[in-house]
Amino acid sequence: MDPSVLHDLLLSVQNGAVSVEHALHRLRTLPYADLGFAKVDHHRALRHGAPEAIFCEGKTEAQILKIARGLRKHKVPVLATRADDRVALALKRLSRKAVYHREARIVVIPSTPPKPLQGDIVVVTAGTADIPVAEEAKVTAMTLGSAVDTLFDVGVAGVHRLFDQVDRLRQARVVIVVAGMDGVLPTVVGGLIPTPVIAVPTSRGYGAHFGGLAPLLTMLNACSAGIGVVNIDNGFGAGHLAHRINTLVTRP
Amino acid sequence: MDPSVLHDLLLSVQNGAVSVEHALHRLRTLPYADLGFAKVDHHRALRHGAPEAIFCEGKTEAQILKIARGLRKHKVPVLATRADDRVALALKRLSRKAVYHREARIVVIPSTPPKPLQGDIVVVTAGTADIPVAEEAKVTAMTLGSAVDTLFDVGVAGVHRLFDQVDRLRQARVVIVVAGMDGVLPTVVGGLIPTPVIAVPTSRGYGAHFGGLAPLLTMLNACSAGIGVVNIDNGFGAGHLAHRINTLVTRP
Amino acid sequence: MDPSVLHDLLLSVQNGAVSVEHALHRLRTLPYADLGFAKVDHHRALRHGAPEAIFCEGKTEAQILKIARGLRKHKVPVLATRADDRVALALKRLSRKAVYHREARIVVIPSTPPKPLQGDIVVVTAGTADIPVAEEAKVTAMTLGSAVDTLFDVGVAGVHRLFDQVDRLRQARVVIVVAGMDGVLPTVVGGLIPTPVIAVPTSRGYGAHFGGLAPLLTMLNACSAGIGVVNIDNGFGAGHLAHRINTLVTRP
Amino acid sequence: MDPSVLHDLLLSVQNGAVSVEHALHRLRTLPYADLGFAKVDHHRALRHGAPEAIFCEGKTEAQILKIARGLRKHKVPVLATRADDRVALALKRLSRKAVYHREARIVVIPSTPPKPLQGDIVVVTAGTADIPVAEEAKVTAMTLGSAVDTLFDVGVAGVHRLFDQVDRLRQARVVIVVAGMDGVLPTVVGGLIPTPVIAVPTSRGYGAHFGGLAPLLTMLNACSAGIGVVNIDNGFGAGHLAHRINTLVTRP
Amino acid sequence: MDPSVLHDLLLSVQNGAVSVEHALHRLRTLPYADLGFAKVDHHRALRHGAPEAIFCEGKTEAQILKIARGLRKHKVPVLATRADDRVALALKRLSRKAVYHREARIVVIPSTPPKPLQGDIVVVTAGTADIPVAEEAKVTAMTLGSAVDTLFDVGVAGVHRLFDQVDRLRQARVVIVVAGMDGVLPTVVGGLIPTPVIAVPTSRGYGAHFGGLAPLLTMLNACSAGIGVVNIDNGFGAGHLAHRINTLVTRP
Amino acid sequence: MDPSVLHDLLLSVQNGAVSVEHALHRLRTLPYADLGFAKVDHHRALRHGAPEAIFCEGKTEAQILKIARGLRKHKVPVLATRADDRVALALKRLSRKAVYHREARIVVIPSTPPKPLQGDIVVVTAGTADIPVAEEAKVTAMTLGSAVDTLFDVGVAGVHRLFDQVDRLRQARVVIVVAGMDGVLPTVVGGLIPTPVIAVPTSRGYGAHFGGLAPLLTMLNACSAGIGVVNIDNGFGAGHLAHRINTLVTRP
Amino acid sequence: MDPSVLHDLLLSVQNGAVSVEHALHRLRTLPYADLGFAKVDHHRALRHGAPEAIFCEGKTEAQILKIARGLRKHKVPVLATRADDRVALALKRLSRKAVYHREARIVVIPSTPPKPLQGDIVVVTAGTADIPVAEEAKVTAMTLGSAVDTLFDVGVAGVHRLFDQVDRLRQARVVIVVAGMDGVLPTVVGGLIPTPVIAVPTSRGYGAHFGGLAPLLTMLNACSAGIGVVNIDNGFGAGHLAHRINTLVTRP
Amino acid sequence: MDPSVLHDLLLSVQNGAVSVEHALHRLRTLPYADLGFAKVDHHRALRHGAPEAIFCEGKTEAQILKIARGLRKHKVPVLATRADDRVALALKRLSRKAVYHREARIVVIPSTPPKPLQGDIVVVTAGTADIPVAEEAKVTAMTLGSAVDTLFDVGVAGVHRLFDQVDRLRQARVVIVVAGMDGVLPTVVGGLIPTPVIAVPTSRGYGAHFGGLAPLLTMLNACSAGIGVVNIDNGFGAGHLAHRINTLVTRP
Repeated sequence: MDPSVLHDLLLSVQNGAVSVEHALHRLRTLPYADLGFAKVDHHRALRHGAPEAIFCEGKTEAQILKIARGLRKHKVPVLATRADDRVALALKRLSRKAVYHREARIVVIPSTPPKPLQGDIVVVTAGTADIPVAEEAKVTAMTLGSAVDTLFDVGVAGVHRLFDQVDRLRQARVVIVVAGMDGVLPTVVGGLIPTPVIAVPTSRGYGAHFGGLAPLLTMLNACSAGIGVVNIDNGFGAGHLAHRINTLVTRP
Repeated sequence: MDPSVLHDLLLSVQNGAVSVEHALHRLRTLPYADLGFAKVDHHRALRHGAPEAIFCEGKTEAQILKIARGLRKHKVPVLATRADDRVALALKRLSRKAVYHREARIVVIPSTPPKPLQGDIVVVTAGTADIPVAEEAKVTAMTLGSAVDTLFDVGVAGVHRLFDQVDRLRQARVVIVVAGMDGVLPTVVGGLIPTPVIAVPTSRGYGAHFGGLAPLLTMLNACSAGIGVVNIDNGFGAGHLAHRINTLVTRP
Repeated sequence: MDPSVLHDLLLSVQNGAVSVEHALHRLRTLPYADLGFAKVDHHRALRHGAPEAIFCEGKTEAQILKIARGLRKHKVPVLATRADDRVALALKRLSRKAVYHREARIVVIPSTPPKPLQGDIVVVTAGTADIPVAEEAKVTAMTLGSAVDTLFDVGVAGVHRLFDQVDRLRQARVVIVVAGMDGVLPTVVGGLIPTPVIAVPTSRGYGAHFGGLAPLLTMLNACSAGIGVVNIDNGFGAGHLAHRINTLVTRP
Repeated sequence: MDPSVLHDLLLSVQNGAVSVEHALHRLRTLPYADLGFAKVDHHRALRHGAPEAIFCEGKTEAQILKIARGLRKHKVPVLATRADDRVALALKRLSRKAVYHREARIVVIPSTPPKPLQGDIVVVTAGTADIPVAEEAKVTAMTLGSAVDTLFDVGVAGVHRLFDQVDRLRQARVVIVVAGMDGVLPTVVGGLIPTPVIAVPTSRGYGAHFGGLAPLLTMLNACSAGIGVVNIDNGFGAGHLAHRINTLVTRP
Repeated sequence: MDPSVLHDLLLSVQNGAVSVEHALHRLRTLPYADLGFAKVDHHRALRHGAPEAIFCEGKTEAQILKIARGLRKHKVPVLATRADDRVALALKRLSRKAVYHREARIVVIPSTPPKPLQGDIVVVTAGTADIPVAEEAKVTAMTLGSAVDTLFDVGVAGVHRLFDQVDRLRQARVVIVVAGMDGVLPTVVGGLIPTPVIAVPTSRGYGAHFGGLAPLLTMLNACSAGIGVVNIDNGFGAGHLAHRINTLVTRP
Repeated sequence: MDPSVLHDLLLSVQNGAVSVEHALHRLRTLPYADLGFAKVDHHRALRHGAPEAIFCEGKTEAQILKIARGLRKHKVPVLATRADDRVALALKRLSRKAVYHREARIVVIPSTPPKPLQGDIVVVTAGTADIPVAEEAKVTAMTLGSAVDTLFDVGVAGVHRLFDQVDRLRQARVVIVVAGMDGVLPTVVGGLIPTPVIAVPTSRGYGAHFGGLAPLLTMLNACSAGIGVVNIDNGFGAGHLAHRINTLVTRP
Repeated sequence: MDPSVLHDLLLSVQNGAVSVEHALHRLRTLPYADLGFAKVDHHRALRHGAPEAIFCEGKTEAQILKIARGLRKHKVPVLATRADDRVALALKRLSRKAVYHREARIVVIPSTPPKPLQGDIVVVTAGTADIPVAEEAKVTAMTLGSAVDTLFDVGVAGVHRLFDQVDRLRQARVVIVVAGMDGVLPTVVGGLIPTPVIAVPTSRGYGAHFGGLAPLLTMLNACSAGIGVVNIDNGFGAGHLAHRINTLVTRP
Repeated sequence: MDPSVLHDLLLSVQNGAVSVEHALHRLRTLPYADLGFAKVDHHRALRHGAPEAIFCEGKTEAQILKIARGLRKHKVPVLATRADDRVALALKRLSRKAVYHREARIVVIPSTPPKPLQGDIVVVTAGTADIPVAEEAKVTAMTLGSAVDTLFDVGVAGVHRLFDQVDRLRQARVVIVVAGMDGVLPTVVGGLIPTPVIAVPTSRGYGAHFGGLAPLLTMLNACSAGIGVVNIDNGFGAGHLAHRINTLVTRP
């Protein structure tokens, strides 16, 4: 509900155009959200410029387009994750501003000119095959307005590559660590730096990896403290959480 | 390795007291950590005043006391988690400053006069039985130096109690949500506020709960973004991560 | 066994055409079901007009057609679930009355003119991708004779959309809640309304979702009471159970 | 929020004692639930006389007593599940009206004189060891106001005992089937009667039973339709859901 | 239903004391089992002299005694499995003929003088700790009337002890192989002999044994054919199945 | 080792052609199997005429052909399971006597004229989709020499069809019960007949069926005794075990 | 079978005291193992002086004593693992030479004067609570004749302690790494040294640790190559395997 | 870092060209690994001639080529595992020396003329379908410089084939045992020989095999000691570990 509607109703009570009983009735029957939840969402959009995300898997092309059109009607940017080439093409037909980040499998349609990116998030991967998930995290956080740096293929097998970058990691406000296989990288990173670490297990592996279960358990049981875990392959979730933490820093 | 040792070695090379070959040999055989890792730990202690945590389960009383004595010798505070009455008594005998937070199962022996608590963490529980884990998170974060507020028993069954507190949650810098049973509370909280949310599943439940597996999976699959998950019953980990995020805000 | 056969046997005993011993022998050796189970099935058909359901997955086209022909010979309607386009085409060739509900993956061949739908079932989904399962539930219940309304995409991420519809949900006799991902929607709905809730987890999700295990466990552990759970993606089972409950109301 | 408070506020606007802006402010800052959720709960209590349930496992005796006292202060009956002898004694000290159903592990403190029980629920068990869970369901539903009958030890091993009772089961409005071991009883019952069936797996069994996982999976995969499943050993949930369905029948 | 009741009913029809319609009504409403299932059970008792088994776990002492008294009233022997010392004492008080096989945890109360044991079952264990399960199988099969021989501790670690006994195993009509740990013994035995093998995994083991899951899976995946598996620790089930197979041989 | 070789060696010792030390050396280094295991296999072939089975999944066409050629060279029949059309074609090219049982996915190349089938095995399925596994069992047992009858689609949903056939099942020497979904059929069958029952879970189902885990657990936990379980979809194993039991009867 | 028995038999053939037929008969009926397996075992005992291990869990005190007496009769040393105080006392009563390593839960009764220990095994633990498993490995390997060094509490949280010891680890012939929690230590160690690594997960942890499953999966999925894994808490197995590898080095 | 760089730096300090402070600065800012880890890797390369392995699954062809080019630039051989035909073709275009071992799915590009293979590894498989994994182990170990022999299809079903080869297995320095299905072969082999055994479960199987989980658990719970387990289908890991152990023997 638009606050002005509520304002008008109260004015009508004040000037006698609406009786108290009738106003009471209207207030009782107003949907909840009109008083508050819509405001919440509005508030969030103002503060973050956060695009609504469309998770494309399991949705038809028609459904994705319909949601995207709705968002654009309300001047909200579009962030479509797990998008394949066909979805990307369809969204590009919807708007020439649409950009397809193929490795991240994300299509972004910005609603406004880009603002300068703020803060400092670093995304680290253990291996080459973890890069698509890392890219999903990166594109998500950047679209939300965070500055993101990447550091790929610094797994424990080549641990010296990681140690070379410890100072860089310490400067970051948040570090996202993406790892498949045994998923030990977040534990090692978490023990080296005082920064919040977001751990993302990936489904990369085989055998007793069980589709990402192995690194997920490793991360949940991490000996190092200061680590929050998101779902397997959930680059979007990691990027979103990192952005929330990253933008905390600059709040007054 | 003390940096001065390295300095002296180079001086000896410069003034010829040590040959290049000998210096090369010494540099090669110096333990890694002497050049850097020990410094890291020192740096961490300076910055956080962070007590080393002793996870008491699976350790003998003698082992716990030995570690605690070691920490105190280095003027490091003691944070002993999963401590029972017997451990608490033993640590109280070690130091009169020891405080036993029974519900949190934590013993704290501060090494210095307490500093003013900073920031704003809110710990929320879904039910009454989740309180011990919430207390572990709270005592951990407070001992590390964060201000912590609690909001217990606002599970979705009594969802209006949660909605009454939405504004309070929005003010927080970090919100920790502790929930057993179906673990739906983090999803609901994450959808209402723009703040980073740390979700802690608890082992409270029965049947197809499988010792906390059910709420753990719920939280990892949360529809709302902005949620990082820690291990089942891991109040300590949640408190530590929350403190890391909370103190980011005040860094210059 | 046709009741008339039993009647004739007793008549033969009465008029001496059959001895008591012979009748005793025949009664003992009569197949069980002839005395009762067939009657049960007949009774069920009379009361519900309930079509026998054919679960098409794992059956050959020939097998499906043979079962469908058998049902039609006995004037029983056909409800073929998990039917793809090929099965639909084959059944349409069998009968021009066949209707293919593609989203629900169900083919219905009614045996009699439709009766007015009764009662009030509401099917709710958390997300867009849950709609096929919801449609399976809806088409099942409607084919059985229940009036069904739908309310899609009211997941907890947009919880205000749900709250706008609480009054509608309260009016229903049964509410089916279909949800993938974390599966929290049934808990929230169950806490808001006094109506029986049937929860259907879907296989929509990824990573630690494990093909629907995550929302299944969430629903089984729901904090709110009054919720019965069916198998993952089992829209048919939910529709059938909802119809059983919905038609209870109108029994004398 | 008491509706009269809202009424008074609008009157004050009408008579000018409160400005529109101030009223707008107060309306915005009113806790959500005051407008609606509290009413929901009140409505539920009026309609069902439904006691709030206290799940005692994982709660201290002090916590249980405090909740019970709160409920009694608001004239709400107490239903304490998973209560042991000590809890029962404590609640009996709280009120002489407290009754301990030891086999069901439930303590009930009614708040009002009992009303006549309505409807017809039948609780069936496969074996003797399933009886405690069945009793939990029975006491729950009866305390909520439903008439409940029981039929114990009719498992498939002695399937004739079940068949002897088919007519009794058909008369019921809802049937609760409690079974451990292989959990096949709900499938068999569901195939014999047109009534809604609530299936409760129990943790009774050993080996590959995995604490109730085996019968839980059996019930979720039941070949017969019309079955809703609750958590392992969740007699309370089954009783509550059965009561919801049972009382549907008598709604105008 | 006693057959004589049916006989009398038919006589009444024959002599006109009961009308055909009334007889039809009575026949329809007679419980199913009265016509057949009771006969089944009677038949089984006649042929096997098979005692009904009482699974004592999860039953109270009073329940066990009540079932035992019922069996004895119908001249049926008692076989109480998973019985502890207290149950054994109680059953010995019930009958002086009760024998407690402590290692097998079985109490037997024979109803008739023992018949000569027939056939040839051999029970093999991999290790010493598997013996209680093997004893449960042995006592079960012997009580049912089979001759049983045992061969303990011939696991693959001491595989020569097994090979020494291959001829003995080949003579048997059925071989029961009981094994915990990795459960490889049935595969090896199944490859050496042409006899039916019943494999019983035991819960003996630790770590990735998961309470018997490891040997259970081993046995289900056995490379050798001719192996049927029963539940973990289910000596009773193995003994019963072995007896069924063993007594097939001597059927005319 | 051919026994005559051993005989000649001993003769050489006797007549001094070979020294004791040399004989001792040869005896020590003789491969084990030469003394016994090869004989075992020979013995088995003589007694059963049992064809060696080739499990085709995971083998290349070339490997399958090579094994088949080897078997045929030794006059051993070929039983190739999990064979697809391509494998069938290749084996038909190898021998014109090859028969492809497509539904059972088995190719048989007999080595000798067929002998009369003996005994009486009945294979029962719960549903239509279980038929391929049942056919694998049937073809296996028949190829081994057993007479096999089938009874398809008598699941508990249509339980009267099962009861109609109880007498037929009782006549059998062994009954194989094949069931997917909830897998309850073996429990029901096992409670009705005194015959050994072999239970085969199938991977037919969805959701919480987990590829056959659900019916597997149901069968392992069966309340009825006298049931041996084989691996999911293991029609071959069931057929082989049934044949072993079936042919026991006719041993002298 | 003692080789001399075979020798005597051949001599008797040579000198005509025993006929070829009789010798042939005796050779055929000799237990297999007498020709070969016993030699194997004898050979093993000669080479390793390896004591037979008794796994005490699940064995009665009487059984343990009986096995121990048997071993001592054959001059074989005793290694009793998972021994508690009571077992230790009983074995000390059996022999004054018995030594109880309480932390390792092992009782050793040597059969001969100790030989000098050879080779170089290092046992590393991640945490203090892993020490009992490490001790089991150490005592096992030492009893078998290997020299063992230990390095406790060098987990990744204090990774510099590990790096300080890299040179020590490189000198070892085999390194055993014992770790609970997330089990990342073997991956890190395996990446630093070229030595074979044996990884032992422990059951130390909680929540999503699932009794050691988490570190087990981590180790199986280790990014670093050169790691072999043993069962959870299986210090004995690790010690035994390490000894096998360690003693390879000194073979001629 | 090339050691000569360090040498030159120290020389410059010695001869005054670089000040102590500047040298100190350079040493501090040198990447860690330059002082030690690179040496490790260099050392490893010198000793083993060990090619870096590229795990091709989940990597794009471009990524694989880029890594391969990097390795070749540093004169390091290439070992690309899990390579399909397309990858093989691409690497063959990169170098004419590339060899594609199709069954092992490995491409090798040697960097130097082959050295003589040393030691003695035997790779054993239980079945034909396990051969690809065995080949991966063999090619890996041979590329690293070990002599490897193979022994295929000696599973327990044809156990005499195994016993024929016991002496061959005893001669080996390490034995790799590859087995799918029930995975019992390592237990049997481990009981027959004193050599270290590396067990590799394969994903070959079906039903309750769960993609290799069954043989994995069997191997972890092996009754025989002296067995180290690697991940399911991890032929590479087994080959690498075997090479590490195999080359231990020849160290001075």
